[in-house]
Amino acid sequence: MTSLHAWSNARIAGIAAPATLLVRGELIEWVGASADCPPSLRPDSTTDLGGTWMLPAFVDCHTHLVYGGSRLPEFVLRAQGASYAEIAQAGGGIVSTVRATRAMSEMALLAAALPRARALLAEGVTTLEIKSGYGLDLESERKMLRVARQLGDELGIDIRTSFLGAHALPPEFEGRADDYVDELCTLMLPTLAAEGLVDAVDAFCEHIAFTPGQVARVFETARELGLPVKLHAEQLSDRGGAELAARFGALSCEHLEYVSEAGIRAMAQAGTVAVLLPGAFYFLGETRKPPVAEFRRHGVPMAVATDLNPGSSPIASILTPLHMACTLFGLSPAEALDGVSVHGARALGLSDRGRLEAGALASFSLWSFDEPASLAYELGLHRPTQVMHRGRVVHSDGNIG
Amino acid sequence: MTSLHAWSNARIAGIAAPATLLVRGELIEWVGASADCPPSLRPDSTTDLGGTWMLPAFVDCHTHLVYGGSRLPEFVLRAQGASYAEIAQAGGGIVSTVRATRAMSEMALLAAALPRARALLAEGVTTLEIKSGYGLDLESERKMLRVARQLGDELGIDIRTSFLGAHALPPEFEGRADDYVDELCTLMLPTLAAEGLVDAVDAFCEHIAFTPGQVARVFETARELGLPVKLHAEQLSDRGGAELAARFGALSCEHLEYVSEAGIRAMAQAGTVAVLLPGAFYFLGETRKPPVAEFRRHGVPMAVATDLNPGSSPIASILTPLHMACTLFGLSPAEALDGVSVHGARALGLSDRGRLEAGALASFSLWSFDEPASLAYELGLHRPTQVMHRGRVVHSDGNIG
Ligand SMILES: [Zn+2]
Ligand SMILES: [Zn+2]
Repeated sequence: MTSLHAWSNARIAGIAAPATLLVRGELIEWVGASADCPPSLRPDSTTDLGGTWMLPAFVDCHTHLVYGGSRLPEFVLRAQGASYAEIAQAGGGIVSTVRATRAMSEMALLAAALPRARALLAEGVTTLEIKSGYGLDLESERKMLRVARQLGDELGIDIRTSFLGAHALPPEFEGRADDYVDELCTLMLPTLAAEGLVDAVDAFCEHIAFTPGQVARVFETARELGLPVKLHAEQLSDRGGAELAARFGALSCEHLEYVSEAGIRAMAQAGTVAVLLPGAFYFLGETRKPPVAEFRRHGVPMAVATDLNPGSSPIASILTPLHMACTLFGLSPAEALDGVSVHGARALGLSDRGRLEAGALASFSLWSFDEPASLAYELGLHRPTQVMHRGRVVHSDGNIG
Repeated sequence: MTSLHAWSNARIAGIAAPATLLVRGELIEWVGASADCPPSLRPDSTTDLGGTWMLPAFVDCHTHLVYGGSRLPEFVLRAQGASYAEIAQAGGGIVSTVRATRAMSEMALLAAALPRARALLAEGVTTLEIKSGYGLDLESERKMLRVARQLGDELGIDIRTSFLGAHALPPEFEGRADDYVDELCTLMLPTLAAEGLVDAVDAFCEHIAFTPGQVARVFETARELGLPVKLHAEQLSDRGGAELAARFGALSCEHLEYVSEAGIRAMAQAGTVAVLLPGAFYFLGETRKPPVAEFRRHGVPMAVATDLNPGSSPIASILTPLHMACTLFGLSPAEALDGVSVHGARALGLSDRGRLEAGALASFSLWSFDEPASLAYELGLHRPTQVMHRGRVVHSDGNIG
């Protein structure tokens, strides 16, 4: 039988200090106040944490971190006051990322994505969602999803992939959106799902992207394939995306700045998580905030994620959106912490992580702050000294000691 | 004679690659394209940087990072919608920081401040301004300034102190602001200046702090003592602080969201630097931005700093305000980079750093990005692999390699 390791003298939210966490293999076998530890559970080895805080490892449930190229030139143009039309004329916008991503080899894409994933891991993220959607053809979407899987192997963390073929219309389908959706539903998605590359299906429902009718077709295909769905909805306008997603039992809806009360009700009934992305709100200079009070009132769980992508949220830090969720959107520190752990996991359909409890994954991080709410208050000051995933060390801070 | 060390094969902004930087002792002896290096300058040793980017070490020209206590409880109350009056009643606000700072020993204050300064150093800051102003009596202000000096010794970086006795009215002078200014000008400032603890004199000119008349008295005392001045001005309203400061040839004015055109003109004529503090703007949820276009038009140099303090900018990161200066205030990446280097230095009256040029301090950092503007675009992704100050290694990233 696998040996039992004790992490003793820990501080864990909701448990009287000193706390003990017992790990066997990949799982937490027991956690509680040290005084309550059953004598039958005799650890084979022990690490005394000396009162260090332990948090569940974070879940970043919304990223587009596999991509080619850089949108820095576009950013500089934008800083000079260039309009979106001018940026598009200069070759900017999502199309430029599609072009660069298509042109890159799998190995080059992996090399580009690794530092982004490492930066998140260094802040305590061990479950990471990565969307496709810069390939927009079968080969290129496959390439992105394969790179996403490889990132997990490389770093020893869990990657959940979302197929986001319905992210933008590829240039070669200009004016033929329905044809593209047709190809997506009959060829791309079934093929990639059969290859085991797709954990969930996402889409972008917006006047600049796909109509509710087109999204419904994608979701029907996902349903036939037995895949859960999620939706970029109501970021720039209310298109009824939240209701549509809820109708398909979506795991999550993302952004939601313009969601209606009806949309919120539908999400609450379907158990759909609201994924808040304050990094994009900040980076795009938006002013309309998601209706946090309404989510609370209707019992819609709120996740918080990076939205890491080159166009609207080039932020390789989960602690920054955690901070911004409080400062910009008014979440409490406890809500923001839940947002990057247990509710982030739920937005991915995962119930085995994001909480320190018996039976959950032994995925956690160690911190030297006085209390976890410090992460919502002090930006730049805190980093985990160690990050564990499935019972193994996946990151240590080299500067500690 | 001290030996000559070459940093070769570097990338340096404005110099054709590969570049070489020659260091003797604490100073840069020569810098330029490697091809132009005079044969007479033969290095005793060489580090080949393999094309790594080199930036001047950063200057954080505005912090309040020595303080006692935490304002986390107040932050949590604020997130719950508590008003300022309610927070004050609950013992929050600046007075709570004054109380905690007064109660702490020098050693405890140093221990609390060290991680904040270390976090800045890890991002490439080697010159750091620290203000007093949470003591507000002779003993406590002295304690803060002594801790500031010790931080420099501890980390091997340069600390510039600003005496900010005129930060807030201490409780024991309630209703007697002129008496406090009198004590400040006749006792506190002259004593601390004589002890060599004061590099500059700062004040807070605002309806919730001190009047222009009171600030003028403080500045006259500074002038008699031969000390340069700076001013927290026009953060919440236009009080004519910029004109007042310019009249005294101030090194810098800080915040400036409400500065008038006349104030900007006066600053331009006096050569006063505008110190932009986007972290406080972000954390306080302000909407009025400093008039960046006007500063540009009038040739007022713009510095960017953290304002690191527990009440309005608990942000221990220079890269975050650098990013926010572009995203929130519309600075170009080049302006923001100058803001945390050469203009930050100028806001402290220092002309020997913030630029990589012959005769300047050998204070620089090494980075693995493709171009420096990446710092204004990608947040959380970049950290220097090594930081040098006065020719010595003061920080290495333990996670590199
Ligand atoms: Zn997204
Ligand atoms: Zn300040």
